[in-house]
This record gives sequence, structure tokens and C-alpha cells, in this order.
Amino acid sequence: MNQIEAARKKILTPELEEVAKAENLPIYKLQRDLAAGYTVILKQKQSRRKAVGLGRNLKVKINANLGTSPYCANLELELEKLKAAQKAGADTLMDLSTGGDIEQTRKAILSASSIPVGTVPIYEVIVAQPDVAAIKDTDFIAAIQKHIEEGVDFITVHAGLRRRHIPFLKKRIMGVVSRGGSFLVKWMLYHNAENPLYTHFDQILELAAKYDVVLSLGDGLRPGCLSDATDRAQLAELAELGRLQRRALRAGVQVMIEGPGHVPLQQIAYNIRLQKKLCHGAPFYVLGPLVTDISPGYDHIAGAIGGALAAFYGADFLCYLTPKEHLGLPNLEDVIEGVIASRLAAHAADLARGQQQAWEEDRRMAEARSQLDWPKMFSLALDPLKAKRFREEFLHDSQEICSMCGQFCSAKANRDMRELYL
Amino acid sequence: MNQIEAARKKILTPELEEVAKAENLPIYKLQRDLAAGYTVILKQKQSRRKAVGLGRNLKVKINANLGTSPYCANLELELEKLKAAQKAGADTLMDLSTGGDIEQTRKAILSASSIPVGTVPIYEVIVAQPDVAAIKDTDFIAAIQKHIEEGVDFITVHAGLRRRHIPFLKKRIMGVVSRGGSFLVKWMLYHNAENPLYTHFDQILELAAKYDVVLSLGDGLRPGCLSDATDRAQLAELAELGRLQRRALRAGVQVMIEGPGHVPLQQIAYNIRLQKKLCHGAPFYVLGPLVTDISPGYDHIAGAIGGALAAFYGADFLCYLTPKEHLGLPNLEDVIEGVIASRLAAHAADLARGQQQAWEEDRRMAEARSQLDWPKMFSLALDPLKAKRFREEFLHDSQEICSMCGQFCSAKANRDMRELYL
Repeated sequence: MNQIEAARKKILTPELEEVAKAENLPIYKLQRDLAAGYTVILKQKQSRRKAVGLGRNLKVKINANLGTSPYCANLELELEKLKAAQKAGADTLMDLSTGGDIEQTRKAILSASSIPVGTVPIYEVIVAQPDVAAIKDTDFIAAIQKHIEEGVDFITVHAGLRRRHIPFLKKRIMGVVSRGGSFLVKWMLYHNAENPLYTHFDQILELAAKYDVVLSLGDGLRPGCLSDATDRAQLAELAELGRLQRRALRAGVQVMIEGPGHVPLQQIAYNIRLQKKLCHGAPFYVLGPLVTDISPGYDHIAGAIGGALAAFYGADFLCYLTPKEHLGLPNLEDVIEGVIASRLAAHAADLARGQQQAWEEDRRMAEARSQLDWPKMFSLALDPLKAKRFREEFLHDSQEICSMCGQFCSAKANRDMRELYL
Repeated sequence: MNQIEAARKKILTPELEEVAKAENLPIYKLQRDLAAGYTVILKQKQSRRKAVGLGRNLKVKINANLGTSPYCANLELELEKLKAAQKAGADTLMDLSTGGDIEQTRKAILSASSIPVGTVPIYEVIVAQPDVAAIKDTDFIAAIQKHIEEGVDFITVHAGLRRRHIPFLKKRIMGVVSRGGSFLVKWMLYHNAENPLYTHFDQILELAAKYDVVLSLGDGLRPGCLSDATDRAQLAELAELGRLQRRALRAGVQVMIEGPGHVPLQQIAYNIRLQKKLCHGAPFYVLGPLVTDISPGYDHIAGAIGGALAAFYGADFLCYLTPKEHLGLPNLEDVIEGVIASRLAAHAADLARGQQQAWEEDRRMAEARSQLDWPKMFSLALDPLKAKRFREEFLHDSQEICSMCGQFCSAKANRDMRELYL
């Protein structure tokens, strides 16, 4: 029995119990939302990793991407990034490796991770055989089966990208920016055939249901620049993803929907509402959204702005962006910066959504700050080490105040005043 | 004749012409908005620096804070920061020095800057005499006069912080977090008297009108944590600032209003709308807002999230935050990070507000990206040097693709496909 079946029969699974406890939510609510497809639990049957819930009334979660590239295929480094991402507070990881021995990399990540791991099986197909002419439709399914059998918790499947959407790309500046998406378009054009992930969707559902793998329905046509945002290509694929979500749910498969991408700030609210409507309340996993195109080197900030707003309006899961986005493969430091920026955005949205634990955290920080209790401030900070390092850059002794205001510290003035007058 | 008088008489000043050109706006509109107090021009009479407009239909601007502290009073370093901030794209600077010879520092900054410079004259009073008992009410006015006569373009005046607001602080966690504000509260309590900046407001207006200095009505009671946001203290002061704005306008003085601070994301929209209502459409200069308290080390990101949203809803001017906020005095690198994060937020809001030049910039970046034209991408980036440095971290030759996706580059795939099929 998988999670959806159990939820429908009101049978309590250890994973559901784990998530209910972590989220401080009643079991019955979680069961109801899982059965209805509003919530998913990331943890496949063979996994010994943590179970993580995404969706209605749950805290906003963040994902960190790892993985080798053809220019930097260093397994040790990827495992270091994995540890750093977990330590920095990532809720999940995705292995997007395209360089070196990607099977070995994936297996190492799966065994090292204590949080759910996702993959994009289509990359395995592309890397093994970059020539579309030589790839059969069944190769895609074989890769999916392989990843699922190896134990991944969720997979990106670009099944909503239909052949009939391709003409909509003509009007775009950036065309297709999803690596999987662009390969599928190439394949469809060459073979003059429908997307094999669409035509074989039932087979994918069978595998996902059997292993309790969450399908992340990929947005192969996500906009890659503001000018392409919320266009016909994006919306046509989104509508298709909504139809596939229904099919998956009927087959007892947990589904989330992937979303943009590059979206100007004023379009974020309705992008989220549209997804929730067209995809029947399924969890929304956004890749940003980036609120500008001109911020290479600072795309983690552009993504944090868009992500905070998206999550406030209902997105459930934020994919991190690192400062290296659009420029190169992230290093260790970039991974940490990306995770923290993304956690910051998720936390800002949790606060805005009235999440009690989030408010408690901020209230405790404010109290520590008003008491000038530095060790407590550091312990409550998103990144305690950096906060401590920054403070100690100028200060050479253990003083109350900081090097910004010195004796003109307003917190100190407040404390003095409280004692004297109020 | 000052800017407001000239605008009312429809006399074209060189400053108005300069701003109209920079903003690509018709003269008559700018004159109308200046006369009505919806827009201000930062450039006092003696200044040879650039004129910068803030307000209705103008691009969102950003300010970088400079200045020594008791722990780090290095004039050379501050002048380096000044150059770095200007190069990174700051629209204005504020000198908030509280360490070393602050008059010398201010004069050096005023003479080195090519963009408008603001100060908080009350700091001069505090630094010269930290004991409130020894400070007379006229000392505050003397400091303001001194700064104005030295040539500053705008000054922060916490004139709306009334004695009757002090009891509202009891409910707060953080009390007063404005350095000037906390000093004024202390002064009022000690002397059992009203805020001298309020009682002598007409004198301040006279000086400001004479030299065409813009008054930035300071929010001494801005919230210093999310729990204190949008409380009685903040709103009572805001209402008072609205009344002072009217008085200033009648006296022919340009005014902007300073705003919070720490504000949860869901309260930003109505905070901005309330300011615009209570302050009769005066330009709004926000200090953040920070959307969480727990991000020391990353407060430039928390501020970029809040700032982008605030500016989208109508804030006109964003004060930058550096990664060192709440921890210490920013160094050179922090200043650059702060300026870029703030520019990113302002740009995201410009895009969301439909600003044409902003859309043009993003469209050009998207085109350069789709053509894999790296030199063009760098030149269009908010921080060209960092973008170039990041890309070249992994790549050792002048290839088209980057180290993220290598040969699996979607932009490359798109180009190939366009040529082959579309």
C-alpha cells in the first residue's frame, strides 16, 4: 500500500506520523490533504531517509540542487556540497549530474543523504546518448525505472510538454530553457512523434505507485526570461500538467507541479493562483521565480524575492538558486549561500502565512537582540557561523555592542531607558 | 527661488530639466508632481552634484549609507566605500558617521561625491555630547543649520516623534531602534519636554526652504522587529509625519517620509498605502523593510525581498542594507553587495510597475543570453565584474557554453533547433 492508498483508507503510516509531528498538524488533516492530492510526502518505499511533507498548511520547503557537470565531475566535491546543504538546512536534494559517472554519483548521493533525493531521469538518457536519432521512446522509461529502483524519492517528468506546444515557442526570446525540455523538443521534432513521457505516462504511473515515488511534473516550457513569462507555451503546458495530475491521482500516485522560472513580480500572484486552479490544488514547486533577468551573480537574491512572494501566495516548495546561476556550476560556498537565501524566502512566506513556529523564532531573535545576548542571537540566526564571523570582524573583545553603532547602540539606550523611566 | 516655488510658477530650473531628461518624463508632469509634494529633487542650492528625483512615476532609487563608527573611524576607507557605492550604482549616499572627526569626514564625503548626500544632523549632537542633561534644545537646530550650510542635499529630521508617543513603547519588544529616535526619547524624558525638532520645526523649515534642502522626516519609532511592526507607536508617528509634511509643503519645503524597518511580508502593501494616504502622496523612503528578524549576515536579502515589494506597492526610495546589518560596520565588499541587492530590488519593482527602460534592459539581457553572447551579458549585468569572475571560475577557454550544463546547454539546443526546424 502506498501513501495515497493508506490515506484514503485512513491507515496511519509511519511517514505520515513523522510529517504530522514535524509540522505540528493533526493526522486527519494530513490524511485528507494527501488523499485529495493537496499534499505529498517525499519518501519512497525503499528509502531510509527522512520523510518530508509538501503542501497545504505545511511549512514551505526548499530544495538544493547538486550534481556534476561535464566541466566539473568530482564526486567528493558533490558529497561535500551534500553535507553543506544539509547542514545549512535544505529540506531535500536533487541530483542533476550530467558529468562523469552519473550512476555512481547518484548512488553515492542516495546513500549519503538523510533527506529526500530527487532526480531528472531524462538526463541519464541524454548523457548516455546525446544524439536524439539514436534514442528510442522506451529509453526514457527505462531510465525512469532505473532511478526509481535505485531508491530516489521524487523524479522530474516533463510529461506535459506536448508536440502541439512547439509552435508556441516561435514567439519566445529564450525558447526552451529546461535542459530536459529542450531535449524532448528536439526528440519530438526529429522523430516526428509525441513526447514519450506523455505517451507512456501510464507506465510511469505504475512504477511511481509501486515504489511510492512522488512525480514532479516538470515544466519543460517554463519561461527563461521576463519577456517570455506567462505566455501561451507556459500556460498550455500548465493546463496539460493539471490533466496529468488528475490521472496520477486516480492511479494513486503523489504528484507535485513544477513552475517557473523567470516571472516579473506583478505576475507572481496570478501565476500561483492559476497553477492551484488548473492543477487542482497540487503542491507547487517553483524554480525561483526570478524577478529580473539582469542579476547574474545575484540570482539567489532575485530568486529569494520571487520565491518569498510565490510561497506567500501559495507555492509550497522552492528550488534554491545559487549566486552561480546562469554562469557556472556552484561551488561549496555558493551552495550554502543558495540554501540560506532560499530558507530566508521560505521563512518570510511562513511568517506571512501566519505559521506559528516561524513567528516564535522571530520573537525569540527580537528578545535576544533587545537584550544584546549575542550567543543567543547567533544560535537563532539562519546561518550562525556567518553571523558570528561578521560580528567578530571588527570587535576584539567580548563587548555588548557592535561595531556599527558602538556606544550609540539603540538597544543599549532602550535598556537604560527602560530601567530609568518606563 | 527654490524648486517648489519654481514648479508652482512653472519656471523651469536646470535641476528639473536634468531629472526630466534622466527619467524620460515631460517637464509639466514633473513640475505638477513637485508642486504637489508627490516628487522631490535632491540637490541643494550650493551643490554641484547630480540632481536626483524621487517620487511619482520616477524610477525607484536606492541609497547607500556610509560613515565612520566609534570602532572604525577611517576616513580613507569611507572615501573608498563612497567610490565603490557610486560605481556599483547607488543613486544617493548618506553619511551616518559617529566616530572620529565627523565634521571632517562629512566635508570630505560632500566634496568627493557626485551624487546627492544626506545626513542625520542629530548624530553630530549626540557625538559631541552623549549626556542628554547637557544638551539644550537649540543645539539640535544649530547642528541642522551647520549641515545645511555645509551643503548637504537632504537631512533626516525626526520631528514626528512626539512626547505623547513614548508610552506606546511599553508594549514593544525592541523599543526604539533608531539611534536618533532613542536619543530624542531619552532627551524628552530627561528634560520633561517636547521633541525640540517638533517645537522648532518652523525654524527647520526656514533653513530648508532657503537652501532647497529636502527634509527626510525620520521614523524614530520604526519597528525593530516583526512583532513590533505596524503598532500604535509606528502609526501615531506616521500620522504626525503626515501633518508635518503638510506644514512643510505650505512653507515651500520639499519633503519625503522615512518608513520601516522590520515588517512581515503580508503587511507591506498596506504599510505603503497607509503612508501614501496619511502623508498625502509624499515620496516614501523605506529602510528595508526586512521581512524577517532571523537573517543576520543575509539582511541585504531580507531587505531586498521587502524593498522590492514595498517599491512595487509605491515606495519610491530604498535604503540599502548590507550583509553586516545588525552585526557591525560594513566593509568595502559589503557596501557593494548592499548596493547591488538594493538595485536589484528597485529594478524588480520598476519592472513590475511597467517602467519601460527597465523592460528594455531585461529584454536585451534575454537576447544576449539566447545568443550566448557573454561579453554582452556581462555588460548588461547589475554587477559585470562579478558575473565575469563567476563564469571564469571553472572555464579555462573562451567557449560558448558555461560550466553548469556544458554541451547540454539549452540555449545552444534552442539555437540549433531554430536553425534546423522552426
